[in-house]
Amino acid sequence: MEFSLIERIRQRTAQAREDVRLGIGDDAALLAVPAGQELAVAIDTLVEGVHFPSATSAADIGWKALAVNLSDLAAMGATPAWALLALSLPKADASFIDELADGFAQLAQPYRLALVGGDTTRGTLTLSVAVHGFVPPGLALLRAGAQVGDVVFVTGTLGDAAAGLRLLQQDHRDGDARAAYLIERLNRPTPRIAAGLALRGYAHACIDISDGLLADLGHICAASQVGAELDVALLPRSSALLDLFDDASSQAFALSGGDDYELCFTVPALRAAQVQADLARLGCGVTRIGRIVEGAGVRVRDATGQWLQPAQRGWDHFGA
Amino acid sequence: MEFSLIERIRQRTAQAREDVRLGIGDDAALLAVPAGQELAVAIDTLVEGVHFPSATSAADIGWKALAVNLSDLAAMGATPAWALLALSLPKADASFIDELADGFAQLAQPYRLALVGGDTTRGTLTLSVAVHGFVPPGLALLRAGAQVGDVVFVTGTLGDAAAGLRLLQQDHRDGDARAAYLIERLNRPTPRIAAGLALRGYAHACIDISDGLLADLGHICAASQVGAELDVALLPRSSALLDLFDDASSQAFALSGGDDYELCFTVPALRAAQVQADLARLGCGVTRIGRIVEGAGVRVRDATGQWLQPAQRGWDHFGA
Repeated sequence: MEFSLIERIRQRTAQAREDVRLGIGDDAALLAVPAGQELAVAIDTLVEGVHFPSATSAADIGWKALAVNLSDLAAMGATPAWALLALSLPKADASFIDELADGFAQLAQPYRLALVGGDTTRGTLTLSVAVHGFVPPGLALLRAGAQVGDVVFVTGTLGDAAAGLRLLQQDHRDGDARAAYLIERLNRPTPRIAAGLALRGYAHACIDISDGLLADLGHICAASQVGAELDVALLPRSSALLDLFDDASSQAFALSGGDDYELCFTVPALRAAQVQADLARLGCGVTRIGRIVEGAGVRVRDATGQWLQPAQRGWDHFGA
Repeated sequence: MEFSLIERIRQRTAQAREDVRLGIGDDAALLAVPAGQELAVAIDTLVEGVHFPSATSAADIGWKALAVNLSDLAAMGATPAWALLALSLPKADASFIDELADGFAQLAQPYRLALVGGDTTRGTLTLSVAVHGFVPPGLALLRAGAQVGDVVFVTGTLGDAAAGLRLLQQDHRDGDARAAYLIERLNRPTPRIAAGLALRGYAHACIDISDGLLADLGHICAASQVGAELDVALLPRSSALLDLFDDASSQAFALSGGDDYELCFTVPALRAAQVQADLARLGCGVTRIGRIVEGAGVRVRDATGQWLQPAQRGWDHFGA
């Protein structure tokens, strides 16, 4: 069923780019990377029932499959350019495909990202998206590079997506605007592309928060051979999260909930004010949550200054 | 489960390349396309039970998932460079992963192809591989470009993979070497990379035969706005195929069986002898099977010179 379905998706996601010499329709696409740029490449898969609830709309699935991948480009400080989509679905359902393509296109369009290849097969609903972006040599944001004394920042607010998932699991559908906001954060994450680009040359280390703050900041610490100390009182939590969940739950979501796709990054203390101002100018909220220290791993202080024990930190992260 | 499994695969597929500035382990890989080359990019998915029988060995699955993608690069005349692997599997089974990675690496190694990114998730056994290769601007082999009067060629022999699948479906496991050969052709297709490179500058049009000769040559005809005439007597069939199946079956497999991953291409008549000599020097068998004519679609003549009717041509192609 490859040709007609992927052609259908192509039509709904069409995006003219000079650097796409040959798009969907041959055995491979032909692409030209601009001179003086390296290629940043990532692939991520969403499986129905594992990465999104079965009731998720086709448009949200299409959006999210691209969003989680663009978030990886954001975390590298790369400019999005091209994507490939491998889609397995139980049956060839044209209206489902169209909605999915529309959700994908809605996110792709502002970045002029072109879908340059794809494959559709029969199977459990599964989307693998591979994204390609550009970054000048030496300017990519890596996980390694955090230094003792760096300030640790996160963009946006934390824990919303995990809270949204909890609401869905509890069948919470009463039209409450705060619940709708949290569920929207789960289903339509916004990759922090502009923030990632602004951090080039400033951030010592950067990662996107897909598995939860503790896990992902832990990756920065491991790659950089440093430790981190966080103050739980500093974690940015949305008013929707604080309204609908008690303090212990919202804290657990913010520390360990996945799927927020905010950026966590470290900058030298002297650059901290500048970075805050730069991101604020982009309309991207940013919060100082801790600092990089000698040692290994992430330690978390509660509001009274006591170190939290691992068992208090949260819950097992969902997803796979 | 992403990190440890993909790290496990990385270790078994490690391949040092100058153009891989940052491999698996960060949010994205960083890659440098050589100056003066365009990037050829394709993605293809294999799903258990759809694209390979459930009894297929892990090593064969790993090989084939890469092979079907390298075959797309071969059909473009591109040199393989990098791959991404998105792997869904029901449970984290280390020995299965190791075998799969070994099969993948066995095919990747002679091309020095590097696995630069990946993702593992829970789900039905599904592999999406995205491959990246290089081709000088203007030299890629396209489906469009076949001209009236061109000679139509195929590499290797046709119908073996479909015959192998038939044997597996019939539970044929008696150790017959001819049967083993056909099943090997199904499970371990050899992408025609060297042939694709040799055809640059010669072939007017090229495609790899994944859906069967009639379907894939039909794609060339549609893209080139021409027709094609084939002589069924000219179709190259292996002695294993001819030994184990009657003439009608082997003809149907050769015309319509998928999964052979041979190349079908057209060259101007004056270049035909040269191309045959060039490919022979690479050890790649090549057979003249027909010619490009005015019109549309593919017509097939039987040994007596009669045109076959569509119903006589074969069977519905398997796979999705």
